[in-house]
Amino acid sequence: LEFENLTFAEKTMQSWLNIPSDHDFSIYNLPFGVFSSSSANRNIGVAIGDQILDLTACSDLGLINDIDSNVFQTGRLNEFIALGKSVTVPFREQIQQWLCDTESPVKKNPGLLVDRLTAQMHLPVDIGDYTDFYSSIEHATNVGKMFRDPENALLPNWRHIPVGYHGRASSIIVSGTDVKRPNGQVMPKDATQPVFQASGRLDFELEMAFIIGKENQLGSPVSIDNAEDHIFGLVLFNDWSARDIQKWEYVPLGPFLGKNFASTISPWIVTLEALEPFRTEGPVQEPEVLSYLQADRKKNYDINLEVIIHPENSEEKVVSRSNYKYMYWNMAQQLAHHTVNGCNLKAGDMLASGTISGKDESSYGSMLEIAWAGSKPVEMPDGSKRVFINDGDNVIMKGFAVKDGVRVGFGTCEGKVV
Amino acid sequence: LEFENLTFAEKTMQSWLNIPSDHDFSIYNLPFGVFSSSSANRNIGVAIGDQILDLTACSDLGLINDIDSNVFQTGRLNEFIALGKSVTVPFREQIQQWLCDTESPVKKNPGLLVDRLTAQMHLPVDIGDYTDFYSSIEHATNVGKMFRDPENALLPNWRHIPVGYHGRASSIIVSGTDVKRPNGQVMPKDATQPVFQASGRLDFELEMAFIIGKENQLGSPVSIDNAEDHIFGLVLFNDWSARDIQKWEYVPLGPFLGKNFASTISPWIVTLEALEPFRTEGPVQEPEVLSYLQADRKKNYDINLEVIIHPENSEEKVVSRSNYKYMYWNMAQQLAHHTVNGCNLKAGDMLASGTISGKDESSYGSMLEIAWAGSKPVEMPDGSKRVFINDGDNVIMKGFAVKDGVRVGFGTCEGKVV
Repeated sequence: LEFENLTFAEKTMQSWLNIPSDHDFSIYNLPFGVFSSSSANRNIGVAIGDQILDLTACSDLGLINDIDSNVFQTGRLNEFIALGKSVTVPFREQIQQWLCDTESPVKKNPGLLVDRLTAQMHLPVDIGDYTDFYSSIEHATNVGKMFRDPENALLPNWRHIPVGYHGRASSIIVSGTDVKRPNGQVMPKDATQPVFQASGRLDFELEMAFIIGKENQLGSPVSIDNAEDHIFGLVLFNDWSARDIQKWEYVPLGPFLGKNFASTISPWIVTLEALEPFRTEGPVQEPEVLSYLQADRKKNYDINLEVIIHPENSEEKVVSRSNYKYMYWNMAQQLAHHTVNGCNLKAGDMLASGTISGKDESSYGSMLEIAWAGSKPVEMPDGSKRVFINDGDNVIMKGFAVKDGVRVGFGTCEGKVV
Repeated sequence: LEFENLTFAEKTMQSWLNIPSDHDFSIYNLPFGVFSSSSANRNIGVAIGDQILDLTACSDLGLINDIDSNVFQTGRLNEFIALGKSVTVPFREQIQQWLCDTESPVKKNPGLLVDRLTAQMHLPVDIGDYTDFYSSIEHATNVGKMFRDPENALLPNWRHIPVGYHGRASSIIVSGTDVKRPNGQVMPKDATQPVFQASGRLDFELEMAFIIGKENQLGSPVSIDNAEDHIFGLVLFNDWSARDIQKWEYVPLGPFLGKNFASTISPWIVTLEALEPFRTEGPVQEPEVLSYLQADRKKNYDINLEVIIHPENSEEKVVSRSNYKYMYWNMAQQLAHHTVNGCNLKAGDMLASGTISGKDESSYGSMLEIAWAGSKPVEMPDGSKRVFINDGDNVIMKGFAVKDGVRVGFGTCEGKVV
């Protein structure tokens, strides 16, 4: 359903919680997450304004009739999202109704709402497998110019395949977790022997990741037309990268220790349904892609993204403003491609976009590009320079979609380098 | 403990089951697995000869006092192996004693032994993350000669780093499961546009994989001296590869759809303790590796490996005889390298060796090398030729170590292409 086609009543839903419609977690959003509040238990909840509706407690109270209560007791969303959209979509609508209807059982049980700002957030899902794509043409071109041939920056396969690789699932951490600067082998310029040292080129990568709900079986590809039915929702994703380690190790089999020390995600999964009003056309794909990758072009999403570096005891600076709509390859194409050989995707699996850069320098999604491999340092408000990330820097990513005064946001995805 | 240092009594253990000492699953082996027999339940067991000792049933009967009975009820070995060697090693010795002592409770309860040959085997662990290395110098050299520069077949990093990459965990399947020939994008020779088709170059890769028992926390590397303490045991591993898909997709980020349609493992995890007598020196490493990768050289294992192609309705042929001892980089080095940046390995994670080729043509571990990129077809007993794997071919891998009349084997790792 297009936002334009919504009735006025639908556009102007109002919760009795009186959340401003320009709040990240407005009544139009209702993202899912896993949190702990007073007890150490990991409960499942939905963010609404500065509060969390505790769905585990709702289930315990008998308010949720259509879903097995065990689903809310596992401390992770895997079981819930595996139920598929025929269950999760009407359930989210019911929550919306609860939060708008002044006679609802939620209104009558104020203990079901928990303070979001003091709750501890956890990984929303157990991630079985994590795949990282490389789907921004601006990012791939920038990297190609810097490290390969400026005249032929894109490799021959790039416009035919949503290039991707498998990443490390175990080291994906939730926003707010510190990131240890990794040690590793690097080959210094003009040296003949590698040395072992702390990475001197620690970078962020501004990405988004989508999370699989409905599974496909091994040997059964998902067609591009059915792909979105398998996507539960999205999070912000910081694919931390140690450029010096990566550069020495990555031929011929791809990134490994330069990436797998940590990746940070935002804690709240924003559903594809909440993002429906922000659907938009992606770039024209030239040459035409193979038929299993062809679909209508309105499979991109207009989501504003920004990256902030906040040094310890000093003022922060926005170093990038980008947008998820810049993606050359969209999620449906990524998913159709990933499964076309029969590869199975499980509930909770995470598929990240790759660095999201725009055309303009101010929209580049990594320090590698922003400071152009060290040649254009960024000046911070305190006068210090950045070509990569310093110890003590908190890297904060934000994402939000806005249309007609309605906002659907992701909160923050942040991590401090220590 | 070295086999040479064992007492005669230890060397000549004898089970009341009278298993020949040259059986893959001799009393010296006792590998762990997950099986179903009459009921659909997934039980944990140990292979002994043509039988399985049902450990879940042993626990239900109250025979296992020192381990929480829940560990045997999960249908997977993750919880058991995560207990670490201080628990699993004495427990395996207790099983050995049960099977040798004619007064043991196991002898008195014959129902605890299940027919192995009719039992259905499952994946022994839930695999969180799977990593594939590229650690045979002969394999890396062969591939480099064929696809890059014959004069400089090894890339500059190869002798400094156990090169590895992340693979797909969800599509790892247990021996005996059919493998569907994958479809995908390939770029035909001299073409300007890729085409979508079934892979015409489906290959096996002869590998072994080790399974993590004791975990390390994110940010805490495992030193090379402690590495083996984190390894529970090994399985045979067939890293199925679609060479045409792989060739087109793999630059610059490594293998993806050319590999992730299936990987087959043998069902029984042979413990590192059972392999202790077969420890042997690995190749000399020149130039010297960095200190975090240095250890005494006796960290390889002398395990005979072979690959058989068995066409449908026709005679089989052994196409390769290799050995795990050929590995240039050993497991301890792989594990120390994998964690040196702080990456965390979880119980059940799988780390595969990469194709294990020897110096001799008869010991090459993939059809790509055996038939040298199609230029040297292999003749089968029925007169048909193979340069890659045909539909209907069953690819069977075997592995076993033998010394002083004692055998410790892996059974088979097989999969038929359909």
